[in-house]
Amino acid sequence: MSHPKTMRAVVFNSELVFREDYPVPDFGPGWARIQIKKTGICQTDLEIMKGYMGFSGVLGHEFVGIVEACDDSVWIGKRVVGDINAACGECEWCKGGLGRHCPSRTTLGIDRLDGCMADFCVLPVRNLLEVPSAISDNRAVFTEPLAAACEILEQLKIEPSDKIVVLGDGRLGILCAWVLITTGADVTLLGHHPDKLETAGWRHLKCITRLDEIKNRADIVVDATGSAQGLNDAVQICKPRGTIVLKSTVVAKDAVNLTPLVINEITLLGSRCGQPSDALAIMQTYPDMPLEKLISASYPIEQARSAFDEALYRKPLKVTMDF
Amino acid sequence: MSHPKTMRAVVFNSELVFREDYPVPDFGPGWARIQIKKTGICQTDLEIMKGYMGFSGVLGHEFVGIVEACDDSVWIGKRVVGDINAACGECEWCKGGLGRHCPSRTTLGIDRLDGCMADFCVLPVRNLLEVPSAISDNRAVFTEPLAAACEILEQLKIEPSDKIVVLGDGRLGILCAWVLITTGADVTLLGHHPDKLETAGWRHLKCITRLDEIKNRADIVVDATGSAQGLNDAVQICKPRGTIVLKSTVVAKDAVNLTPLVINEITLLGSRCGQPSDALAIMQTYPDMPLEKLISASYPIEQARSAFDEALYRKPLKVTMDF
Repeated sequence: MSHPKTMRAVVFNSELVFREDYPVPDFGPGWARIQIKKTGICQTDLEIMKGYMGFSGVLGHEFVGIVEACDDSVWIGKRVVGDINAACGECEWCKGGLGRHCPSRTTLGIDRLDGCMADFCVLPVRNLLEVPSAISDNRAVFTEPLAAACEILEQLKIEPSDKIVVLGDGRLGILCAWVLITTGADVTLLGHHPDKLETAGWRHLKCITRLDEIKNRADIVVDATGSAQGLNDAVQICKPRGTIVLKSTVVAKDAVNLTPLVINEITLLGSRCGQPSDALAIMQTYPDMPLEKLISASYPIEQARSAFDEALYRKPLKVTMDF
Repeated sequence: MSHPKTMRAVVFNSELVFREDYPVPDFGPGWARIQIKKTGICQTDLEIMKGYMGFSGVLGHEFVGIVEACDDSVWIGKRVVGDINAACGECEWCKGGLGRHCPSRTTLGIDRLDGCMADFCVLPVRNLLEVPSAISDNRAVFTEPLAAACEILEQLKIEPSDKIVVLGDGRLGILCAWVLITTGADVTLLGHHPDKLETAGWRHLKCITRLDEIKNRADIVVDATGSAQGLNDAVQICKPRGTIVLKSTVVAKDAVNLTPLVINEITLLGSRCGQPSDALAIMQTYPDMPLEKLISASYPIEQARSAFDEALYRKPLKVTMDF
């Protein structure tokens, strides 16, 4: 069958443009082309529009789609999500199962690889995971950010006796809190938006708006605020010898005072992408995790400008786009 | 025997003054008064003079001295060094052997407790350690900074296969490099002062002046530069998923870009004081560790102003003062 040569795409190149004539991507051996069903706007997309990573091309790295073309015909027609880092597969990082740290990786919609806010994107076949039928598109589209939240569990051993505070009631903070609450630990989400904190309510998660009641109390603090103030708050909340997990790849514009980190011998742990398989597993284990509630609005891809305006100016939990 | 009511002391109270009429400190049960033999000037003393910790009183926390008075007469006349944190002894931190994180601690010459740049200082008896006779005063005076270097070994498991880079050829950087080289790991000291790097030569320590040859190579980076640039260099040198140990309690005046820390999932570990017993043990095990070479100049206590001027403006490795 012949397929169209051009497609709809949300392209960033110093400004954001919706195009209907963007070339459909080709792909080489070992890669697959995916027809996108649903995509989400991430804070990283908004940062890219401010210059982060110097990226230009098709935006987007949160998706669920159907494999449209692939050398290995067994994949065609499957509903998939995928690891967004296209690694070389050969280096010591790749061989150790840590392709997401491969020095020559490209990254979907972030670093030299056109993203998924288009009818089609391409990824290595080894990055793909079939989505179980019980997981809806509205849940599967959270695979990438939920995997980023799951990464904390891979980096850090959580004890049920741990007191954990998550800073930031945005989507990443809420997803981190939900993943952490599954460990049985005592988890508190600190935010400043009563409506978002209400949405965040799940299981025994405590949602609060004031920092002073939890100073020096937490064994683990997860900073998902994306602001320098978040890290300054985190060092106040963290116990001596505790751990702060830094989840946001945001360039700090204000100076962060690291002195309390040294005095209190705090461990600061940078944490980024996780494994999509962990996200799918947690969605299957916890079908009641209210992921769909995080979608504040959904737009047809043609209304990408409105979708981004909503994400930029109203700062809702999650804006998605449908194809 | 009656003792003098006043003493010589180096006092900071918005400015540095040498006094001969400072009151000899009293002490309560469980404490001892120590007659100081030798004291060292630390970078922290210089930071205090710029306002760090809002401290006023007798400066100094590096010393070797003789116990002059104590309820427990067995201590009198013993040559001692000591833990500089005067902890409560009752809280969960103290009971867990981590009195140096006791929330109600005072700290010798740093926080609400007069320091050791005086004829006498006081400390809890439980903080004291007798110095073995094989360790000279010129070595014992390094107990506190050497313990701070040893703290890295307590916080972090070092493998002989680890590649370690220490940033900063000041005394703390050199002491960290020396302690780390005893583990058998591959240790490189990066500095900018050929004379200091020459002094640092010991065992198989590599001393270099250029960062570009070691980028992305280190499993562990120790930042002992005391500058924001040091941390920025450290993230360039550290491998993905590696560890950066932050050793300097210096208020960063420039913004530190923490984004690479997140992208590369680096662990940043704040590290402060260590256990004096570890420092004495390493001095006994390695009598060839050339600690004495770090003393660039020594002054009588009366010439404290000259000693501080030397430390401030010539930035030598270590200035000490004798009584």
